[in-house]
Amino acid sequence: MEIRNLKAGEEVSGFFAVRKKELKEYDSRFFLKLELGDASGRLDAVLWEDAATTNHQLEVGSVVKVKGTVTTYREDLQINVRNIRPAKQEEFSLDEILPRSKFSTEELEKRFVEEVRRVKNQHLKKLLELFMTDRPLGSARDKKIFDAYLEAPAGKLWHHNYIGGLAEHSLQMAEIARNVAPFYPQVDAELLVSGALLHDCGKVWQYRAVGFFDYTTEGRLVGHINSGDHYIASLAEKIENFPAELTWRLRHLILSHQGTGEQGSPIVPQTPEAFVLYAIDELDSKMGALARIWEKEKKAGWSEYINLIDRYIYWGENRIQT
Amino acid sequence: MEIRNLKAGEEVSGFFAVRKKELKEYDSRFFLKLELGDASGRLDAVLWEDAATTNHQLEVGSVVKVKGTVTTYREDLQINVRNIRPAKQEEFSLDEILPRSKFSTEELEKRFVEEVRRVKNQHLKKLLELFMTDRPLGSARDKKIFDAYLEAPAGKLWHHNYIGGLAEHSLQMAEIARNVAPFYPQVDAELLVSGALLHDCGKVWQYRAVGFFDYTTEGRLVGHINSGDHYIASLAEKIENFPAELTWRLRHLILSHQGTGEQGSPIVPQTPEAFVLYAIDELDSKMGALARIWEKEKKAGWSEYINLIDRYIYWGENRIQT
Amino acid sequence: MEIRNLKAGEEVSGFFAVRKKELKEYDSRFFLKLELGDASGRLDAVLWEDAATTNHQLEVGSVVKVKGTVTTYREDLQINVRNIRPAKQEEFSLDEILPRSKFSTEELEKRFVEEVRRVKNQHLKKLLELFMTDRPLGSARDKKIFDAYLEAPAGKLWHHNYIGGLAEHSLQMAEIARNVAPFYPQVDAELLVSGALLHDCGKVWQYRAVGFFDYTTEGRLVGHINSGDHYIASLAEKIENFPAELTWRLRHLILSHQGTGEQGSPIVPQTPEAFVLYAIDELDSKMGALARIWEKEKKAGWSEYINLIDRYIYWGENRIQT
Amino acid sequence: MEIRNLKAGEEVSGFFAVRKKELKEYDSRFFLKLELGDASGRLDAVLWEDAATTNHQLEVGSVVKVKGTVTTYREDLQINVRNIRPAKQEEFSLDEILPRSKFSTEELEKRFVEEVRRVKNQHLKKLLELFMTDRPLGSARDKKIFDAYLEAPAGKLWHHNYIGGLAEHSLQMAEIARNVAPFYPQVDAELLVSGALLHDCGKVWQYRAVGFFDYTTEGRLVGHINSGDHYIASLAEKIENFPAELTWRLRHLILSHQGTGEQGSPIVPQTPEAFVLYAIDELDSKMGALARIWEKEKKAGWSEYINLIDRYIYWGENRIQT
Amino acid sequence: MEIRNLKAGEEVSGFFAVRKKELKEYDSRFFLKLELGDASGRLDAVLWEDAATTNHQLEVGSVVKVKGTVTTYREDLQINVRNIRPAKQEEFSLDEILPRSKFSTEELEKRFVEEVRRVKNQHLKKLLELFMTDRPLGSARDKKIFDAYLEAPAGKLWHHNYIGGLAEHSLQMAEIARNVAPFYPQVDAELLVSGALLHDCGKVWQYRAVGFFDYTTEGRLVGHINSGDHYIASLAEKIENFPAELTWRLRHLILSHQGTGEQGSPIVPQTPEAFVLYAIDELDSKMGALARIWEKEKKAGWSEYINLIDRYIYWGENRIQT
Amino acid sequence: MEIRNLKAGEEVSGFFAVRKKELKEYDSRFFLKLELGDASGRLDAVLWEDAATTNHQLEVGSVVKVKGTVTTYREDLQINVRNIRPAKQEEFSLDEILPRSKFSTEELEKRFVEEVRRVKNQHLKKLLELFMTDRPLGSARDKKIFDAYLEAPAGKLWHHNYIGGLAEHSLQMAEIARNVAPFYPQVDAELLVSGALLHDCGKVWQYRAVGFFDYTTEGRLVGHINSGDHYIASLAEKIENFPAELTWRLRHLILSHQGTGEQGSPIVPQTPEAFVLYAIDELDSKMGALARIWEKEKKAGWSEYINLIDRYIYWGENRIQT
Repeated sequence: MEIRNLKAGEEVSGFFAVRKKELKEYDSRFFLKLELGDASGRLDAVLWEDAATTNHQLEVGSVVKVKGTVTTYREDLQINVRNIRPAKQEEFSLDEILPRSKFSTEELEKRFVEEVRRVKNQHLKKLLELFMTDRPLGSARDKKIFDAYLEAPAGKLWHHNYIGGLAEHSLQMAEIARNVAPFYPQVDAELLVSGALLHDCGKVWQYRAVGFFDYTTEGRLVGHINSGDHYIASLAEKIENFPAELTWRLRHLILSHQGTGEQGSPIVPQTPEAFVLYAIDELDSKMGALARIWEKEKKAGWSEYINLIDRYIYWGENRIQT
Repeated sequence: MEIRNLKAGEEVSGFFAVRKKELKEYDSRFFLKLELGDASGRLDAVLWEDAATTNHQLEVGSVVKVKGTVTTYREDLQINVRNIRPAKQEEFSLDEILPRSKFSTEELEKRFVEEVRRVKNQHLKKLLELFMTDRPLGSARDKKIFDAYLEAPAGKLWHHNYIGGLAEHSLQMAEIARNVAPFYPQVDAELLVSGALLHDCGKVWQYRAVGFFDYTTEGRLVGHINSGDHYIASLAEKIENFPAELTWRLRHLILSHQGTGEQGSPIVPQTPEAFVLYAIDELDSKMGALARIWEKEKKAGWSEYINLIDRYIYWGENRIQT
Repeated sequence: MEIRNLKAGEEVSGFFAVRKKELKEYDSRFFLKLELGDASGRLDAVLWEDAATTNHQLEVGSVVKVKGTVTTYREDLQINVRNIRPAKQEEFSLDEILPRSKFSTEELEKRFVEEVRRVKNQHLKKLLELFMTDRPLGSARDKKIFDAYLEAPAGKLWHHNYIGGLAEHSLQMAEIARNVAPFYPQVDAELLVSGALLHDCGKVWQYRAVGFFDYTTEGRLVGHINSGDHYIASLAEKIENFPAELTWRLRHLILSHQGTGEQGSPIVPQTPEAFVLYAIDELDSKMGALARIWEKEKKAGWSEYINLIDRYIYWGENRIQT
Repeated sequence: MEIRNLKAGEEVSGFFAVRKKELKEYDSRFFLKLELGDASGRLDAVLWEDAATTNHQLEVGSVVKVKGTVTTYREDLQINVRNIRPAKQEEFSLDEILPRSKFSTEELEKRFVEEVRRVKNQHLKKLLELFMTDRPLGSARDKKIFDAYLEAPAGKLWHHNYIGGLAEHSLQMAEIARNVAPFYPQVDAELLVSGALLHDCGKVWQYRAVGFFDYTTEGRLVGHINSGDHYIASLAEKIENFPAELTWRLRHLILSHQGTGEQGSPIVPQTPEAFVLYAIDELDSKMGALARIWEKEKKAGWSEYINLIDRYIYWGENRIQT
Repeated sequence: MEIRNLKAGEEVSGFFAVRKKELKEYDSRFFLKLELGDASGRLDAVLWEDAATTNHQLEVGSVVKVKGTVTTYREDLQINVRNIRPAKQEEFSLDEILPRSKFSTEELEKRFVEEVRRVKNQHLKKLLELFMTDRPLGSARDKKIFDAYLEAPAGKLWHHNYIGGLAEHSLQMAEIARNVAPFYPQVDAELLVSGALLHDCGKVWQYRAVGFFDYTTEGRLVGHINSGDHYIASLAEKIENFPAELTWRLRHLILSHQGTGEQGSPIVPQTPEAFVLYAIDELDSKMGALARIWEKEKKAGWSEYINLIDRYIYWGENRIQT
Repeated sequence: MEIRNLKAGEEVSGFFAVRKKELKEYDSRFFLKLELGDASGRLDAVLWEDAATTNHQLEVGSVVKVKGTVTTYREDLQINVRNIRPAKQEEFSLDEILPRSKFSTEELEKRFVEEVRRVKNQHLKKLLELFMTDRPLGSARDKKIFDAYLEAPAGKLWHHNYIGGLAEHSLQMAEIARNVAPFYPQVDAELLVSGALLHDCGKVWQYRAVGFFDYTTEGRLVGHINSGDHYIASLAEKIENFPAELTWRLRHLILSHQGTGEQGSPIVPQTPEAFVLYAIDELDSKMGALARIWEKEKKAGWSEYINLIDRYIYWGENRIQT
């Protein structure tokens, strides 16, 4: 029962995230207007029965069980809700609600382990191994960071905006890094690969999955670059004899990977590894966004207008659906 | 024996920092060309005797004992060096070599203590007190941070570029913050004052005093904003029950105090305190720079052209020397 | 009978400003669609009787007497108008229609007088006193400028956009200027305070109050900075022996107070006073805007998205309503 | 005896402007180093006799009588001065010292009169006629403005930087305006021509001729756009029944003629005349600069690198000297 | 039967371009929603009969024959379509559908011929003559280029966006070029005029007229500047002994006429002709846009807000309709 | 006899490029000041005998035979020239004068042939094969373009600024393109590789090797992007049935590979291949520049300040010389 496939007239019974809610009044009666979402899309819904009471029971970002009928309102589909209640954790799986990577968590974990296995530098290896097991104390950090890393998205809207997107993006960058490093003798390949794996790790604290992805207060006030920088610096401090210079070079990769202050990096690239990391992050995030745009339309020729990059994309005349 | 007061023909005998050195050749003979500095200025010097050997014994940034004569070379003064050797730590005081604040370290410390005394919020108070005593382990951090804070400059060239400059600038901002906060009911005055005191604390790791001030490798690769952010985040983690939200708001002040990405801040101001802190940092650093420019010329009317802000400054026609 | 408090079903009888009007047709009948406003907000209204005739009698910007019923149309409130006619000047007070400062005109005037009393420089004192009594001849200038100054807003939408906003903002800046000036010995405090009081005086010619605030033709073609510059230059010319240099320094404060050409200032700050005035104008206008945003939502946590500064504002988790 | 034509070995006896001076010391002797200038160029000069005394007698910007010999110093020409003294006003004419337009003051005046004669709008005609005779009271304004207008340069370095340059540039723009206006029916040709004649009139207060052209304090603190705006606004106020709207449109032309805030205009063009005036000012000042560059080299092919516009200019392969 | 003049209740029978189409569903029934356009404007239309079938028969950009009634829907006019079918080429003329220049194709051609007649340089004359007759082989180029040039618009929305707009704009620029060139002795007038005529010729390949103007794939992927550059370079290669340097200077005019990289020119102006061409293109395209804005409202005082230039336009208080 | 290895006192006899020349006068005698260069560096030289006559015989950019002695002048080395004359083409090889790629022309050609061999798309294969044999008529184009391509530099100063640099850079990009393409299913790998090989081919016309690399007039007036675009478009036109769409997509790669207008591209990337090509050009040109900087200093730690990117580069503490 995916939102993407609903048709006018169908009966609906399923689990959805509450993306927005608003209590409104019409002809002296209250009704509740909702935006519901699942892994496949979004849809409006209305509830007339007990609208005010229900409004108090539902939270934006929570998952709900919904029964109703699909109707057409002003030429758009919407669900006329008959029953709605908060879902219990055991009733649904997050995978039905949130979009996720085509790679399973296990695959992503396995690839990460494999990347760490290849690293020969003992300091970097220790740090990456610690990253995979670390379970820091404190509010947002009392579970295994690595588990959160494997589940986090790499973006809210623009690219890799799904469960596992962060790890998928980081691992693909690590692979590209291994491919590209041999062309440049000035580059330390293992430092570069480590930087690729960890560059966006602060996104673990930047987004929360609440039926959909949204920014956390830490994500907005501190930002993923500094959450990640502080975390990696703290990890390095826990490892005996971790060289100060290596800490700086690794932090430098995290801090400079967006290239310039305008693009959100507090520090510009100053090491050969930082120049390469910036370039392949640019490449992989832009191409990740193109892939997302393609998936939405899957139509040869010209795309719709893409506001964020202020242009249309041309897929070619006879593109075979990939 | 200050560089500023040397005259052609005088005998020189004193302690100076080696700012630059270069072994050169003229008429098949080697000579050593030096730039020497002290708290009052800089001067070139040349050494012909044992130039190559001496070159190996001196390090840029170290302090040396120099004897020689002031001469004129191509219309500029320079020292013809007869004797030069590395100075021993007990022979000279840093104060002869480096410029310093008009406030003594004791005064600055006392004012800092007084600011902390005023703070009533227990979390912020604890954090500030811990800051004054913290002595973290590890390479660049095994001495008391607060001592380094009281000695550090706030800049290399542009403003408060002298010993104690960081504390002088931070304390003046704290005072202005206390003056200005009452005008804005949205502002938490104690958070703002704490932010003023700590906003630039990362400069402790950004500069090293080596006869003059220069960037450290950490200063360039990590940057003072991120060094400070990591340090304050670590401090907060050491304090029991320090609220996560307060950590974020405090880190936010450090991260956003330069206002925009172009100006070096990875995060733009998003809290009332951050807007105020940014504005008074702008004010105090610009005015600190104007004060430095004024000190150099002390002349009514128009200043020399100031490259960094791309303009002349007008002091007024009849300015009394302040 | 404030717009903010109207509810569906209520009878309305009151005075409002006509913000927009449009004659429309539906089912071959004409109706008049209006946007009405008062000091508390805006609301749509419709009139079916004699729509075309009434349309000719009403002017955008004028104040009208309205009778009707509040209804719900497409989920928004609107007024079904039964009677509407131009209001007579004696029937209503501008204060019911336009929002105004929490300070009365008398308070603002008193504080201005007090600021002038403190000024010891005879030239500046004379100029400020002349400002308070000047009544220039000619089209837009035949009333007392100072009265207009006490009533004018400091902005159309962004900050201090209400009656008395200009004086409130200018006086608060003068106070801050007096607080901050002692920190900077290069600054002439009285010149700075005078500049704070007068920096935006050109706004007297930039806005007209027509039920709401709108730009005048002079405001758009000449701009408040140049209206103010010309006016202050003319004032100085009327005062015997007013020093040319002081005129230039005062005009410089008006001309440079927005900081850069991109921000609307034809001249960048070049005097110590101009640097300070720019900084505290930035501070007070930004904080004025934050106050306005806070007033609208008065809700802890995150604000709505603020387009003009391209960010959300964080008020803190447990903010007490101020 | 033009600087441009001096050769090594020649005797010099003539009048020059002192552009820079510095008292220096060499081998325990003082000497005075000067930069002298005339209408044709600049040259260094040195004086050994009574250097310190002479230093006190000469002012930068003043004109001096010089006797000496041209020599070669470090591969550049310089004058070895034997005698130097302040020149008396009656001894020299400004035309020997300062470069000037190829058009005489009389020609420029005649062309201006002719432009005014063509104007049929009575308000604009009166204003232009008043401009030609106005003799305002006060410090910088006690002579006839129009005389200063006919003598002023239009720039310090970049274009029309010579006596009469302001009038030459303004009159050429007026002519182009008359040519171009008929293409655009939205344009009021007489307003445009008046704007062309007056757009830079504030330069009368921006530069002073002191042997060479330099900025005045008013020029820097107020700026030519605002000096001109205030002056024209004051002129209009002196004319009975001068329409307020016409004042605003004329001031708008002055205020917006540099196009954007970044380029120094406090107001962007908002009337058809303002769009045209901006475009032809751009055209004529850029082409004036190209003419200046061409005059300096007069060589087919590529010019030297032009820093201000960050490019080389290509004159073509077989350009005939014009 | 122009769209601009349709009124509610009228019967419609005419030819229109299909600008958009969408098959929608309401109450379980399909209907076809269309946007129709002609030379005078745009209007929505709906069709309920055989909506799905008709949807397959119509193409966006094609011209259709429409019969129906004008009605009011949600306060806007729309056409209730009874019959709609693809129009046959012989039934309608493009002139009814697309807006066009006030100058006929014949007039434009005649003026172009006249411009070529004036050119004395034999190389430029040959190139312009070849341009008027060239009929290159290949996909988009098998008809006479000059015919396409006389029909093409100069823009899609902003200026000269009608049939003949390209030629009208180019010819007016050529005239202005002839007027302005004599003021600047460094300019080769014939090269400038040739550049004016040809500078936008690449727009022939940039737009296609499909009921309205839209970008071609070549227009987006290659751009009019490079389509034009390649075409003119190819033309020059076909002419015996066409000097290489003249080719470069002519291509330079095409490549640099938009002034900077930000504005779309791959090369900045480096020849006197290029500086002038850029300036008069700026002038004529801005004024062309103002004329378009004026035509839409034809109302004295202030225009609507113009997004593209981020301002209002002021036409003056008493503007006579031109 | 490489310039890099010359020492004071040595006799010189060899071939060098004349990079600059100037006839100067000292003590009433003329002398000729030269800057000479070879593949290893640059050095000043002076000639006193027959300076004026020799000046006429030598051309900047030509190669000369020089005999003389290395001396020290103002602490820098220079050559005192005894004999100097234009070299004959058969006396020297360009390889002694100009720096060149570590790859031989044969290797580069072989790699190019191999890349073409891999291409399966018949249209692209034909175009690349034609590129390798094309010998266009006309001034700058009468030799085999491919030979020029194999010898050209990819830059004047910043990266790959040596013989063979263009091909080395293009081939390395083609290899990286082949490595990276499989990560992105939206990318046509062969089109991308073809774009990598040809993207900078216009540099063949942009630089001339005249003892050193300098811009040609075509290079400045037309630019390498447009020279390349026109050339590739012309090649495609020579191939029967070359699809128009493929031409546009290939030209698009050339036109957009610098990413934005500010960076010199008239068109922004709009196809998946263009996004990738831009990213790997950024990567390879930046890393090529880093390699050049490293080669110059070969010293661990921090580099000298690099103006062009406004930063220092950090090579790491213990970098092994590569």
